[in-house]
Amino acid sequence: MCDLVLYGNLESGHSYKARLFLTLAELPHRYVPVDLDVPRAERPEEFRRASQFGEVPILVEDGVPQAQSNAILLRLAQSTGKFGPPPGGRWEQLVTWLFWEANRSGFSMANLRYYTRFEQAEPEAMAFLRARAVADMGTLDRELSTRPFIAGSTPSIADLSICAYVFLGGECDMDPVGWPNVAAWLDRIRALPRFQPQYTLMKG
Amino acid sequence: MCDLVLYGNLESGHSYKARLFLTLAELPHRYVPVDLDVPRAERPEEFRRASQFGEVPILVEDGVPQAQSNAILLRLAQSTGKFGPPPGGRWEQLVTWLFWEANRSGFSMANLRYYTRFEQAEPEAMAFLRARAVADMGTLDRELSTRPFIAGSTPSIADLSICAYVFLGGECDMDPVGWPNVAAWLDRIRALPRFQPQYTLMKG
Repeated sequence: MCDLVLYGNLESGHSYKARLFLTLAELPHRYVPVDLDVPRAERPEEFRRASQFGEVPILVEDGVPQAQSNAILLRLAQSTGKFGPPPGGRWEQLVTWLFWEANRSGFSMANLRYYTRFEQAEPEAMAFLRARAVADMGTLDRELSTRPFIAGSTPSIADLSICAYVFLGGECDMDPVGWPNVAAWLDRIRALPRFQPQYTLMKG
Repeated sequence: MCDLVLYGNLESGHSYKARLFLTLAELPHRYVPVDLDVPRAERPEEFRRASQFGEVPILVEDGVPQAQSNAILLRLAQSTGKFGPPPGGRWEQLVTWLFWEANRSGFSMANLRYYTRFEQAEPEAMAFLRARAVADMGTLDRELSTRPFIAGSTPSIADLSICAYVFLGGECDMDPVGWPNVAAWLDRIRALPRFQPQYTLMKG
């Protein structure tokens, strides 16, 4: 890996996933915070060139842009060999958890927080999101009752993906303290060397 | 690939994605329809052994189960070389689209249809899902204005993934006819050799 540029945003848990990998794995990179309050068409040209949909995060690797946080994690893990499958595990299991995140907690927790903090949504839409988020936290709590990390004995990209919006649960009345196995798992992630939380790491 | 067993369901677009691949690619397999009206704990034991969360689809390959429809598609494409990147394309682009589907149209269209056909949801929750589905169909229509298939000139797993719930749009007042580039793309998929629609293919 030669030249890595990450476009992200202070508030974006999806961006945090990517920078958390880069930081924990000690991969030198340039981090460019993108102001999402600026309309898409007016964002810096270097960013618009890299980002097909004007979204963060984007990781540019030797000039080639990659979108979608979980695709970025998969790419980074496969090219560096870091945060891959725990002993006895398979890549397919990690891919399965990444798709679970995209469709479940990375939707429910992310949107519940978004519509709590940044935009209004109807109470019934919030209740719909909250019911899914509660189900997803329940799934995680059951899974984490049998092992220290999502896919086994060591942390993998499945953990780095799922933890992002779970860490932010307190912002939308989903404090992980209500799910003891989840809370203990977050503590294990916090204890990893070089760990930094969302608002420290993404500040720029 | 020796022994392939797919557990799915007549109504599940996620299951359809996997069987559509197997059918178009002419991969011999055993298809086992699972009755989702039977409580999870009472479903056939061979299925419960394979499915950690009691969900369909599950593809069992030489005894090893794989969950999450998009993870199944990725695994099948990488192991067979079929429905991979179009000429000039990269695997990473397909992975990006698979995560887009899991978080966008495979959530919005799938849930809008689910709560139209199988369960009640509050009108405001439906409006929330519909707004997302409309945005997602708009994204697809713009993307497909420049090329015949999602990732380029030939069909890939990105198409097989995204088409499933778009084909079913008419069931939740999202008939693709309203998005001409999407409708033309579905016609190109329908024209692929051995293509069969959801309720024919998934009947068993």
